[in-house]
Amino acid sequence: MNHRPIGIFDSGVGGLTVMRKIMDRLPRESLIYLGDTARGPYGPRELGEVRLFALEIASYLESMGVKLIVIACNSATAAGLLEVQRRCRVPVIGVIEPGARGAVHATLNRRIGVIGTRATVRSRSYIRAIRALDAGARVFSRACPTLVDFVERGEVEGPEVEKAVRGYLQPLLRREIDVLILGCTHYPLLQPLIGKVAGARVTLINSAEAVAHEVDNKLRARGHSNESTASPYYRFLCTGGKEHMIRLGKMFLGPEVDKVEEVPLDDIVGRF
Amino acid sequence: MNHRPIGIFDSGVGGLTVMRKIMDRLPRESLIYLGDTARGPYGPRELGEVRLFALEIASYLESMGVKLIVIACNSATAAGLLEVQRRCRVPVIGVIEPGARGAVHATLNRRIGVIGTRATVRSRSYIRAIRALDAGARVFSRACPTLVDFVERGEVEGPEVEKAVRGYLQPLLRREIDVLILGCTHYPLLQPLIGKVAGARVTLINSAEAVAHEVDNKLRARGHSNESTASPYYRFLCTGGKEHMIRLGKMFLGPEVDKVEEVPLDDIVGRF
Repeated sequence: MNHRPIGIFDSGVGGLTVMRKIMDRLPRESLIYLGDTARGPYGPRELGEVRLFALEIASYLESMGVKLIVIACNSATAAGLLEVQRRCRVPVIGVIEPGARGAVHATLNRRIGVIGTRATVRSRSYIRAIRALDAGARVFSRACPTLVDFVERGEVEGPEVEKAVRGYLQPLLRREIDVLILGCTHYPLLQPLIGKVAGARVTLINSAEAVAHEVDNKLRARGHSNESTASPYYRFLCTGGKEHMIRLGKMFLGPEVDKVEEVPLDDIVGRF
Repeated sequence: MNHRPIGIFDSGVGGLTVMRKIMDRLPRESLIYLGDTARGPYGPRELGEVRLFALEIASYLESMGVKLIVIACNSATAAGLLEVQRRCRVPVIGVIEPGARGAVHATLNRRIGVIGTRATVRSRSYIRAIRALDAGARVFSRACPTLVDFVERGEVEGPEVEKAVRGYLQPLLRREIDVLILGCTHYPLLQPLIGKVAGARVTLINSAEAVAHEVDNKLRARGHSNESTASPYYRFLCTGGKEHMIRLGKMFLGPEVDKVEEVPLDDIVGRF
């Protein structure tokens, strides 16, 4: 069990920011990343459809023998975490609960902002997760549908994206939040800009670190950490457009993304 | 803020097992413990009544200037955590969520047992907390109403208490649980006996350690840890029968419980 890889999936390349943190924290673990680039982004899709995609991919990863699955995508976590946990034999970790926990710990005035895709915000998952940890917290959410496109174009600074960020954050800042959850795995690339717009009084929560911590805890508690000193392997899979993933992968994760394998969508669709 | 004490309360002396772990992990923090010995145990009481008691005591501790409150009592957490979080200005941590998290991390077959008082089991709080972390986990709960009395009599071994423990655990063991949550702060004193009856294949989860970890994380994230090297102070308060608390306190916490102050119930009742 200990030598088996961890499976990580996302609608595209954003989850690579989560994989980066898992690599850094757990350098002995082999990792398989699957980006559903043929069907992503999930943000604008219906929750029911995203849930089905998540179930299919989790089943595909289980068939590859992973020991744990990370849903490194806020939309897929919001839509499908519960169903995937019910259907899988291995433990499944999403990105929402760890981020919510980080925010609840960090806030002083208990006024928490959340930005994410439409699907994530509509699901109210962050609100539920935060209230379960602190029933007295106030949560202010905002969908930022254009930010993913800016990031995917590599446009993480400049007047245009700054104007968009400012427009999205203003209503949240007016509510005097002191913590802001980056509720989309693309947003860490905008962290310098978001930090500048939000100001020094607002703490930014990047779930990726919290997720890596959670994966570590879970493997340790179960005695499933890889203790071997042999080098781990990393595999990058996508369902389409691997050149796009190699190019963005270097930006989202680093030079390790040098080879990407394409998985025919037919191998995944209808598995569930 | 950093020098202010942490407030901890329980229906009686059980929460001292939680205080012990907080003292060990955070040796620089001053702590005020309040045991509601005049009205405890809470286990057999109605949830609504326990919720009111929890609100009154939390308000009393806030008036003493604490920077954080720990509800070191499963029954009071189950009955009142959400309301207390809503009404208090300082963060409030209960014992149920940290224990649920420890169990979800440790289980391999995702079959989790919970033992506690009638009030705790009836509230279904552990089931909710576990399912929020792993929707695919199976939870089997059992109320063990006589165990608190055994512990308070100092009877933590011997044929009579062993027979009681065996009777309570048998139905859970038959469901093949591999993790058992000690869902009452009295039960850590029975841990050797419970471990013997449950067998080596069952991991016991004592929430106290998980709670201390959570308190540490919360204070650090907020920059509220006490960094001073001056000695912290410990105060032990109860609402009645302080000789009882001194005697049991040495068993539940250690020699530090040498002086207990009685708070008139009138100072607490009606605060809320």
